[in-house]
Amino acid sequence: MSLVVMKFGGTSVGSIERIRNVAKIVEKKKDKGHDVIVAVSAMSGETDRLIGLLKEITPDYSLREYDQLVSTGETACIPLVTQSLLVDGYDAISLTGLQIGMETDIAHSKARILNIRGDRIKQAISEGKIVVVAGFQGYNVETGDITTLGRGGSDTTAVAIAAAVKADVCEIYTDVDGVYTADPRIVKNAKKLDTISHEEMLELASLGAKVLQSRSVELGMNYNVDIMVLSSLEDKPGTLVTSKEDKNMERIVVSGVTSDKNQAKITLLGVKDEPGVAVKIFIGLAEANINVDMIIQNVATEDGKTDISFTVPKTDLIKAKAACEKLGKDAGVQEILSDENISKVSIVGIGMKSHSGVAATMFKVLSDNQINIKMISTSEIKVSCIIEEKFTELAVRVLHSAFITEKQNGQL
Amino acid sequence: MSLVVMKFGGTSVGSIERIRNVAKIVEKKKDKGHDVIVAVSAMSGETDRLIGLLKEITPDYSLREYDQLVSTGETACIPLVTQSLLVDGYDAISLTGLQIGMETDIAHSKARILNIRGDRIKQAISEGKIVVVAGFQGYNVETGDITTLGRGGSDTTAVAIAAAVKADVCEIYTDVDGVYTADPRIVKNAKKLDTISHEEMLELASLGAKVLQSRSVELGMNYNVDIMVLSSLEDKPGTLVTSKEDKNMERIVVSGVTSDKNQAKITLLGVKDEPGVAVKIFIGLAEANINVDMIIQNVATEDGKTDISFTVPKTDLIKAKAACEKLGKDAGVQEILSDENISKVSIVGIGMKSHSGVAATMFKVLSDNQINIKMISTSEIKVSCIIEEKFTELAVRVLHSAFITEKQNGQL
Repeated sequence: MSLVVMKFGGTSVGSIERIRNVAKIVEKKKDKGHDVIVAVSAMSGETDRLIGLLKEITPDYSLREYDQLVSTGETACIPLVTQSLLVDGYDAISLTGLQIGMETDIAHSKARILNIRGDRIKQAISEGKIVVVAGFQGYNVETGDITTLGRGGSDTTAVAIAAAVKADVCEIYTDVDGVYTADPRIVKNAKKLDTISHEEMLELASLGAKVLQSRSVELGMNYNVDIMVLSSLEDKPGTLVTSKEDKNMERIVVSGVTSDKNQAKITLLGVKDEPGVAVKIFIGLAEANINVDMIIQNVATEDGKTDISFTVPKTDLIKAKAACEKLGKDAGVQEILSDENISKVSIVGIGMKSHSGVAATMFKVLSDNQINIKMISTSEIKVSCIIEEKFTELAVRVLHSAFITEKQNGQL
Repeated sequence: MSLVVMKFGGTSVGSIERIRNVAKIVEKKKDKGHDVIVAVSAMSGETDRLIGLLKEITPDYSLREYDQLVSTGETACIPLVTQSLLVDGYDAISLTGLQIGMETDIAHSKARILNIRGDRIKQAISEGKIVVVAGFQGYNVETGDITTLGRGGSDTTAVAIAAAVKADVCEIYTDVDGVYTADPRIVKNAKKLDTISHEEMLELASLGAKVLQSRSVELGMNYNVDIMVLSSLEDKPGTLVTSKEDKNMERIVVSGVTSDKNQAKITLLGVKDEPGVAVKIFIGLAEANINVDMIIQNVATEDGKTDISFTVPKTDLIKAKAACEKLGKDAGVQEILSDENISKVSIVGIGMKSHSGVAATMFKVLSDNQINIKMISTSEIKVSCIIEEKFTELAVRVLHSAFITEKQNGQL
């Protein structure tokens, strides 16, 4: 017998029929003798409906009132899930973020969890109840105000509760059945992973794989919570995100290949090569809330000038260029170039830590396929390359073939 | 400068446009220099929508989960009202029942208020804020569970808050503009009352006048809260429900004439005239949750038998007859008769306390108009008669004419 947190998103609870289906999945788990905590999002469409009402008043709304409003979406969902369990003869209770003691800071609409008291959850579990908890919401102890956790908040709720009550596993039910070695729409023989480390999952999540929100993976890594990604539509094994030692992990060098087309490159020509000049530009961009990803600075020419290239999300390109025009004056920038036709392809694998030559192999594979590399960035467990956008799918396929398919066949 | 509680029902906040209108009414009050607390219901239709979802699962739902669910209707409404005030440049804050410390017992779906801490309201008021409070909802301190106050709960919230914070007046905004001497649809020259006592209003409310819920009037009487009934559609004076001494009050004998068609009469023939027999029947009816209103017992015949007649709500007639058939056996009941074609007409007036002959005048007026009286009940400030249903409107008109119109003209 173990203690399991099960999380269901808005689509899974989008109608009473689907809520009844969620109840069946939960009941099956309970029947196996497990203690169960269920975390749910608002019914799909409900959050947008509520925000729509607020925006009818003003697009520039108070974030405190926004939190008070949108949190009702999750609060309204939990009694419906609970009643579905009750009517099937299972003892259950719904609890809001406040009722479970989900204490956050006061950063409305993107609050950070400070503490989960969890005593009420534990008591209900000890009474044999299935506990149904509202995702996404918390409250601030000092003010008593309701807060929400921002995008992917319900995943974060589920993992945080799992950490607080020391659950054996946190199961995230979604519309895909696990984490794949690549996007199956691009790579037909992409393979579902049985396990993946938190570290790798974090890289994959931040590189564009949309299975889990980075924040919940980060939390899982910090508190050593095993996260199982499963389908709410089919009853089959998912992918376990874990940091427990696994003999298989050592043998796998690359766990996944991923791509991200939401990238644009900006190049600043003729920047003064003096200490602090580049720093000022990037501080300015950060202040404008623009996330800069990769940065390359060329060797300075004899006249003390250099070029700097960096990537930003495509959606921020106009804003970023405007900021550069303002910031560039002091830095002596002569020209600002931009390129939207790029994408980022990455390979991720914890095995890279102990394998040399992985990056070199990646460059060779791309080069062999006439794909030019514009920028490179690496971490201990990741190599990313900026390439021309039109080569994205080809690059993912050849990298998947080289690092994953062939390796399985013992050819690497 | 005074402290005012303003309450708006579901229709008044039924759309963003109407919420904007409510904000304007509140702002006008604030502009006059008053401190303002606003209590609101859920947007019209929202509570029914939520209950509909729950009933899709089962009609026999948990009342705890029902409270958790339906209370979100009010919680979602308060940020919308608050945002409307904020966007107009007024400082405002939304607070749930829990946030204002609305402590209730644990009787889910019909909880009674035990205490209102109110410290958070007072603090916000002292900061110059307009406080927007969710009506209808509270919570239980021991369990932390959300509760709701039952029918008319938002009126009750408003009056209870007014009592807790010692507000100068509690204004109830509704779709009528005050309390009338009779239903204006029946009596064309019915007059709007400037003031009425809590006691009278309580009788009128329980006799079928639907302006205020009895429970909120009772609370107002107990805590000496002045309640002003006003229209949310037109800016004109309403009716003040107060227990403050008023010279005018003494002079008015009858304040209102009211009627109630939701009445049915049951007659039990041949009941044993022994101590405790009738009592058993009425205890049995009470246990079956049937509200018995008037009771008449005839003088016993020589064989020790008597007849008992009583009235019940028309909607409970079938249930009441079934209960009587079961209960009547021991009591020797020979036959059970029922009559649905009856109604109750009543006159209410605090002046009756010091005026004799009011009941006699009522009987004479009805008799002069060939209206037969089937049953009578009286209190210190009320006389009610059961008559044939078809005479209802006639009875209201002639009584209104005799006690109110003619009296105003100095003819009584």
